[in-house]
Amino acid sequence: MKKFEEKTIVKEVLYEGKIINLQIETVTLPNGKTSKREIIKHPGAVCVIALTEENKLIMVEQYRKALERSVLEIPAGKLEPGEEPIITAARELEEETGYGSENLVHLISFYTSPGFADELVHVYVAKNLYKIENARGADEDEFVELQELTLEEAEKCVADQRIFDAKTAYAVQYIRLQQLMHKYKTEIQ
Amino acid sequence: MKKFEEKTIVKEVLYEGKIINLQIETVTLPNGKTSKREIIKHPGAVCVIALTEENKLIMVEQYRKALERSVLEIPAGKLEPGEEPIITAARELEEETGYGSENLVHLISFYTSPGFADELVHVYVAKNLYKIENARGADEDEFVELQELTLEEAEKCVADQRIFDAKTAYAVQYIRLQQLMHKYKTEIQ
Repeated sequence: MKKFEEKTIVKEVLYEGKIINLQIETVTLPNGKTSKREIIKHPGAVCVIALTEENKLIMVEQYRKALERSVLEIPAGKLEPGEEPIITAARELEEETGYGSENLVHLISFYTSPGFADELVHVYVAKNLYKIENARGADEDEFVELQELTLEEAEKCVADQRIFDAKTAYAVQYIRLQQLMHKYKTEIQ
Repeated sequence: MKKFEEKTIVKEVLYEGKIINLQIETVTLPNGKTSKREIIKHPGAVCVIALTEENKLIMVEQYRKALERSVLEIPAGKLEPGEEPIITAARELEEETGYGSENLVHLISFYTSPGFADELVHVYVAKNLYKIENARGADEDEFVELQELTLEEAEKCVADQRIFDAKTAYAVQYIRLQQLMHKYKTEIQ
């Protein structure tokens, strides 16, 4: 998948931060002209679609400074250097919700903003949840509140924009699709 | 939705670019401590789920420098200053695919990376497509190739990671959900 490849002539790193780096690359386009690309480097992240025994979807409410508001999201967090995504997923689930899962399965991975960032999010589905005694808590500068929503409540939150991000919208749609497939005993071939 | 609000003490704009700005905000946390937030400001974007008469999903293949590869995505583009998202959607659909739509409907909007960016993507569904004669072409430094995929082909591309971004994965799942609901004549209440 290299069609229309843009080759880098000059790369300039403008910022190296705690979570993201910013670099500007001067590239040669397929027509021979040059252009600049603004690129955010990100370590990648995981998120977890976790269903309780009562089929409720586990959400965390947290303030997102970039949005200047709080939102409901599925549990998520960024990868530590060299960490396997499934390990991050188990850790974030424990830290943000106090739950462990006997059955943590990779569902899909996707880039969130391919136009300017290399952030890749790995989505896991967590089943057979159990409460972890003395679970590790959230990071020191992280404030989250656990919520458990039925599918219908979650869909209402999508409509109300209390759920307002791509991975969580994907998760709610995924659960609806699973429920329909289960109801009609159909499978995607 | 201001729970756990983080108030800005200092805001420093480090970069103002063509598409994104980078700013670092020093914030007061709910526990009174301070922390830094790295934030990307983005003008927002649109994308279009467009189905042909033969129920094929319209995709564009393009090189994404941030990923160093090409991917298949639904048609998309960023908002011009002050532009209504539905106008952007019609424009991007025309420029990237040559199609117009008699029925362009807003489906959902979501933030792509709430942890570090304010990019909001508005998703539209385009039905009743028609070919535009002498359609406006893509931007000068944009190289895209049109592809039309059945739902099954699109799902295979998701599995193969030729489709590899959140909005397009959402779109493919949306089409599958619509197809199931249509097949079983069910509706989400």
